[in-house]
Amino acid sequence: MNYGEKIIELRKKMREKHPLIHHITNFVVMHSTANGTIAIGASPVMAHSQDEVEEMTSFASALVLNIGTLTKEWIDAMILAGRKANERGIPVVLDPVGAGATSLRTDEAKRILDAVKVSVIRGNPAEVATLAGEKAAIQGVDSLQEADEVKHLAPKLARKLSSVVAITGKTDFITDGEVLIACDNGDPMLRLVTGTGCLATTAIACFSTISPDPVIASAAGLSYFGLAGEKAAKRAKSPGSFEVALLDSLYDLTDEEIKEGVKLKYEKAV
Amino acid sequence: MNYGEKIIELRKKMREKHPLIHHITNFVVMHSTANGTIAIGASPVMAHSQDEVEEMTSFASALVLNIGTLTKEWIDAMILAGRKANERGIPVVLDPVGAGATSLRTDEAKRILDAVKVSVIRGNPAEVATLAGEKAAIQGVDSLQEADEVKHLAPKLARKLSSVVAITGKTDFITDGEVLIACDNGDPMLRLVTGTGCLATTAIACFSTISPDPVIASAAGLSYFGLAGEKAAKRAKSPGSFEVALLDSLYDLTDEEIKEGVKLKYEKAV
Amino acid sequence: MNYGEKIIELRKKMREKHPLIHHITNFVVMHSTANGTIAIGASPVMAHSQDEVEEMTSFASALVLNIGTLTKEWIDAMILAGRKANERGIPVVLDPVGAGATSLRTDEAKRILDAVKVSVIRGNPAEVATLAGEKAAIQGVDSLQEADEVKHLAPKLARKLSSVVAITGKTDFITDGEVLIACDNGDPMLRLVTGTGCLATTAIACFSTISPDPVIASAAGLSYFGLAGEKAAKRAKSPGSFEVALLDSLYDLTDEEIKEGVKLKYEKAV
Repeated sequence: MNYGEKIIELRKKMREKHPLIHHITNFVVMHSTANGTIAIGASPVMAHSQDEVEEMTSFASALVLNIGTLTKEWIDAMILAGRKANERGIPVVLDPVGAGATSLRTDEAKRILDAVKVSVIRGNPAEVATLAGEKAAIQGVDSLQEADEVKHLAPKLARKLSSVVAITGKTDFITDGEVLIACDNGDPMLRLVTGTGCLATTAIACFSTISPDPVIASAAGLSYFGLAGEKAAKRAKSPGSFEVALLDSLYDLTDEEIKEGVKLKYEKAV
Repeated sequence: MNYGEKIIELRKKMREKHPLIHHITNFVVMHSTANGTIAIGASPVMAHSQDEVEEMTSFASALVLNIGTLTKEWIDAMILAGRKANERGIPVVLDPVGAGATSLRTDEAKRILDAVKVSVIRGNPAEVATLAGEKAAIQGVDSLQEADEVKHLAPKLARKLSSVVAITGKTDFITDGEVLIACDNGDPMLRLVTGTGCLATTAIACFSTISPDPVIASAAGLSYFGLAGEKAAKRAKSPGSFEVALLDSLYDLTDEEIKEGVKLKYEKAV
Repeated sequence: MNYGEKIIELRKKMREKHPLIHHITNFVVMHSTANGTIAIGASPVMAHSQDEVEEMTSFASALVLNIGTLTKEWIDAMILAGRKANERGIPVVLDPVGAGATSLRTDEAKRILDAVKVSVIRGNPAEVATLAGEKAAIQGVDSLQEADEVKHLAPKLARKLSSVVAITGKTDFITDGEVLIACDNGDPMLRLVTGTGCLATTAIACFSTISPDPVIASAAGLSYFGLAGEKAAKRAKSPGSFEVALLDSLYDLTDEEIKEGVKLKYEKAV
């Protein structure tokens, strides 16, 4: 497959559809995630009350569940929305922020996975290792492990959950348990801004509203997000202006830049 | 009336008074709204606990109620604060974010309107149509209708509620049921940044602390906000840098730019 | 002491350690505080559920408690985390946002101080006066008093609580009741951006993970933060771009700029 042309085509269709992405996400990133969703080309809505999440999901094109500042009540709302999404057959993308850091985060991420069929889990290496049942090295919400250290755990986890698992790090790995794609787009500056992992999750959700294959949607989302990070790193050298440039780049990345910059590589799953 | 000179005068007095604007608003926009309030020239405070909202409102100069990430408990707090504002006679500005999208939002917006005398309702076309009892086209929190499609509903709604109704869109319309003012300031870039509608609401609240006439306060607030959007669009072409430029422009818009740029037009109410 | 060299040394060690700072803070500033923490050189985590705060604090290097958008439940969580921090002997830095504005804020700030041994209280003049039992002039969360008006109250409060008290204003004052240090770094532009006081608190917390002396940590944190504000004010003249420049400057302030710019002055406590 020519990945560059695929991403260009998916983005074009997404921007025409302008799909609604229902987020139940954390307080730290709500603003930047909403802005990122618009910049990519979709329409964000944030709603978390148990009195409306099902109705909101009922006309959304994808659902993002992000546990970054969780309470049990918020997870209850996520499960209500997730089940509605499953009923309607729209994709659910889970960001298990900090799974492995506290038992609440680990347990509640698993509670979501038990109750909801998730299309894609996007996590850092420690979060993915935790969900795979391994001991993980995590400090707060930052992984102390690299993606290639836990890459071998992803296919089994993906098969067990019938989900795509996307691990982000220096290299990103995307697998459904059968195929595995590596993504080398991105820039170290992305680690200097809060919520960039959350925004990568949202990018996957945006592309998943167009591509029926969650492997392709995840690869496209992470590559697109990484390309925007690369363009932003050319525009800015410190984190404040980099964050602004990232949002600019998610919006104004050109077809030419996508075609020339995409770094996706197909591998066989282990 | 010379609208430009009126806005300049109101802004001058507001910046001298530096009035406190108590916001009970949504998680997505709290930071950008607080910054916008300061940039315009007032002083923001965000407080939502039912244990303090009345006391906080008791020394504020205006109250903003925004239901963007509502729960019933937050609406209860809004009503407590709103009643205190009514008791004191300070203006209450309501932003019924997403009314029409879910029944919770529609019902809770109406619950506020039943319990609190609101000076100004600032909404997008679909939100205003919903409050007027019409079927509305809304996707999440984004209107799929234009302001001139629902303009005819606003005067009746305004008379029914004894409130000013301000519909924002390509052209904004402000009415108290007797007069109607059209505002052509603004820029399409404003739709690329989250929370710009919420910030337009805050601009109205800021001007309402000086002008006793809510029609004038609303027209001044929306024109001022739109002018800042126009200046920002000259400074930046992508949404990250546009958001920064918008905040800059709310602060550094000159008297000259106001005088030359204001596009308010008096119409008779239908 | 050569303060410049001390700050340079502390920052170097902090950036090597990359310490985790657990924040229980307000909705308005979560995003900017997380970004500021990273820019200074530490690692932020925001977690407020009573079901996880103790566990999160158990591997953090410092704890920030900020009551900006408090409810009683959030204060309960702060006390749980604060006691765990005390048990482990890690520093707790309190930001009593708006103490004096409402009785809830005054009472809950005192409830924290009764239950938790706090290393440093960082507040504006009105907040510090309130905690010292004096009548304060506050509008929402903005002090109407200058730091030198309440400076005389700080040493007694510090002795009573066995805490360092840091008052920020045109000049900042830091005291443990025995020594008093004045800091003249900073820029008036900082008042045009929301959450800069909160971020000054975070800067103290970051430096307190390295310096065992809370007076030094506070002086270093406030001077460093003020220097970044000064550098930002050279880079930008309006508040949107100033906020971006502040984040840039917290990251890229050079050793040379620290050495030449630091304005800390030792005074005897009154």
